[in-house]
Amino acid sequence: MMQAEIIAVGSELLGPSRLDTNSLFLTRELQRLGVPVIRKTILPDQREVLAAAIADACRRTPLVFTTGGLGPTEDDLTVTAAAQALGLALRQDAAAVRRLRRRFRNRHARMSRNNLQQTMRLADAQWLPNPVGSAMGQWCATPRGALVLLPGPPVELHRMFLEQVLPRLKDKLPRAAIHTRVLSLVGLDESRVDSLAAPLYRRVSNPATSILATAPQQVELHLTASARTPGGARIRTDRLARQLTRRLGTAVFSQDRQSLAEIVGHLLRQRRETLAVAESCTGGLLGAALTETAGASDYFLGGVLAYANAVKANQLGVSAVTLRRYGAVSAATAREMAAGVSRRLGADWGVAITGIAGPAGGSRTKPVGTVFVGIVNRAGAPAHSVRFHFSGDRDRIRRSSVLRALNELRLALLASPRR
Amino acid sequence: MMQAEIIAVGSELLGPSRLDTNSLFLTRELQRLGVPVIRKTILPDQREVLAAAIADACRRTPLVFTTGGLGPTEDDLTVTAAAQALGLALRQDAAAVRRLRRRFRNRHARMSRNNLQQTMRLADAQWLPNPVGSAMGQWCATPRGALVLLPGPPVELHRMFLEQVLPRLKDKLPRAAIHTRVLSLVGLDESRVDSLAAPLYRRVSNPATSILATAPQQVELHLTASARTPGGARIRTDRLARQLTRRLGTAVFSQDRQSLAEIVGHLLRQRRETLAVAESCTGGLLGAALTETAGASDYFLGGVLAYANAVKANQLGVSAVTLRRYGAVSAATAREMAAGVSRRLGADWGVAITGIAGPAGGSRTKPVGTVFVGIVNRAGAPAHSVRFHFSGDRDRIRRSSVLRALNELRLALLASPRR
Repeated sequence: MMQAEIIAVGSELLGPSRLDTNSLFLTRELQRLGVPVIRKTILPDQREVLAAAIADACRRTPLVFTTGGLGPTEDDLTVTAAAQALGLALRQDAAAVRRLRRRFRNRHARMSRNNLQQTMRLADAQWLPNPVGSAMGQWCATPRGALVLLPGPPVELHRMFLEQVLPRLKDKLPRAAIHTRVLSLVGLDESRVDSLAAPLYRRVSNPATSILATAPQQVELHLTASARTPGGARIRTDRLARQLTRRLGTAVFSQDRQSLAEIVGHLLRQRRETLAVAESCTGGLLGAALTETAGASDYFLGGVLAYANAVKANQLGVSAVTLRRYGAVSAATAREMAAGVSRRLGADWGVAITGIAGPAGGSRTKPVGTVFVGIVNRAGAPAHSVRFHFSGDRDRIRRSSVLRALNELRLALLASPRR
Repeated sequence: MMQAEIIAVGSELLGPSRLDTNSLFLTRELQRLGVPVIRKTILPDQREVLAAAIADACRRTPLVFTTGGLGPTEDDLTVTAAAQALGLALRQDAAAVRRLRRRFRNRHARMSRNNLQQTMRLADAQWLPNPVGSAMGQWCATPRGALVLLPGPPVELHRMFLEQVLPRLKDKLPRAAIHTRVLSLVGLDESRVDSLAAPLYRRVSNPATSILATAPQQVELHLTASARTPGGARIRTDRLARQLTRRLGTAVFSQDRQSLAEIVGHLLRQRRETLAVAESCTGGLLGAALTETAGASDYFLGGVLAYANAVKANQLGVSAVTLRRYGAVSAATAREMAAGVSRRLGADWGVAITGIAGPAGGSRTKPVGTVFVGIVNRAGAPAHSVRFHFSGDRDRIRRSSVLRALNELRLALLASPRR
């Protein structure tokens, strides 16, 4: 199988505030062609370092892409480093000089001497024209495949890749297609998912499977298959996805990267039902998650942030007896919060969270991480609640609470008959 | 000069949708110590590839950090690869096994066999404890310096770096004292801050100053000075910080990395006053920000998420006339929401947000990004409101709204006499 490597050039990409985002575009485009990216390297503007890394990459991997370092300044060293790496001469290209002069004339700009370094071509390389900038790219054959020099500015890179690189790659590649499916799971940890799923995914090497803990309480299984046609690749991922879903049950909440909040919204919208939330320790995170995607107003009415006990009592109708006898963090309070908010806001469903996010406030019977989720469907049975114990710091406990509250609502929606 | 390299491990980081963001944190922290990062490499979960790259890096660079691949699954290969790279034996650590069993017992969870691979330590390496996860890190001396294995989840990585790695690094670095001061600003963009601040910070090279856009509406100025003593370094940063603060005025909300929500909480606590919030387009994000830090119950009572107009009317008392004449996204509605929530919850202060986060819902007079913030102090003047227009996508508009609402409250608190 053809493979690729990406080398991003630029000292600014080694600072604390910028990432090499160009590689995401390249990776996506290459994946569509069935070419996986097997390594990314980010390097400073230093010729010796660049030359050594380009030489290593070209020995190791058939397709090597560099991004950046094609500009007119002294920091732009990719072309000279590539020449050194491959032991190739650099030639000034008279046609390129004329083109560049014309470009500057047309824009009524003065060309500085530095710009001439942009007309130096690796021996035997092909120019890759740049319709939106002065830095041309280069396609240079290597013993194992090709070294492709691309500019750093995303607009220039995208256009050059799509117009110049893609056609050349398609000529070279066997006609393979890739399909990826992502199973999203809630409530099982990574090792538990692995021990359940491994017996199934280990029997096949295509699709390849990887497991990823993406957030507290959330794990993803990525299945990537290749085949001669897109349909063939899809059939392979779908088959394994079905087997895994059967094994993992309702823990799988999405097969196409939808968030848990989106899934819940989808179920509510289908049923034309509405939702209100009551939050204590999460302080608004549940509402924030539900309204992350546009269109939530179809089903989300709003809620009450009942951080203080007085708000639980006055705005949600949690009884003084309940608060006194069981405490604000209790199954009974969670149930009364859910019932109260759905009644007051006139929603079909109510979800409540009350817990101890820490670091202070824990006790022997209710340690930090103890969280109760209350759920009610006004057309159904009385409110019920579920007790959780989450680990981690305050942030993690709050995020876990939101995820599991959404999941409890999802399970209740799935279990409740549509009216 | 000491230098560092970062190797991010994980096939998922070579896909089209995820970047190695951990390296930004590490780069920032290392920069503060005067240690530049000279290369970043992103590698798949393949032992031979990892081992070769770790070996190269340790030959090349004194400090090598790996992130990820310390989990309990078969894909987690960093430790075995490191052993291979450095030619070290791996030993199961009995104390680590006991610790892990205890961890699982405390969480009432079953430990799977896989987890035992997390107790394998490189010969002579030191464990780096992980208080928020099962994957311990390792610090292993190398001929040129050290190889440091860190976990991939950001929460675990940050904590382990700050608590375990930083003290070890400080021991190793030459005893130049370094002091960093961070000025946090709200409401000015990066280039505006630069044009105001540059005339001051360009006059000196020590402290070095860098500008960082950390979030929508938020910019940080990092001043890093070195001197022979900590006191000397501190005097240098403090002097420049004073000059900058005089120039930048109330846009500077913190000089020691406190969040805007913490600053607001601090002001409220000082005054023994309470706060309630009313949120429409932000759906709970403001409440979530206010409750991110423990102890918010000293001043934060709660709030109402008034996503639907009926909730604005029934739960907050926004008048039907206001909603009909001016619309739900208007100065009048924002004022009535703030007044309503403070009255209903009995809070001294009320803050409200109503706006159009998009992508749909905009109009010619109120385009997407139009947001009104309402503020009221029940002991003071009637509610007032401020109109904003934010750019960016839904997420960015919502985050901007929260930041500017917190800032309006901060400015109102600063302007209002203490009772």
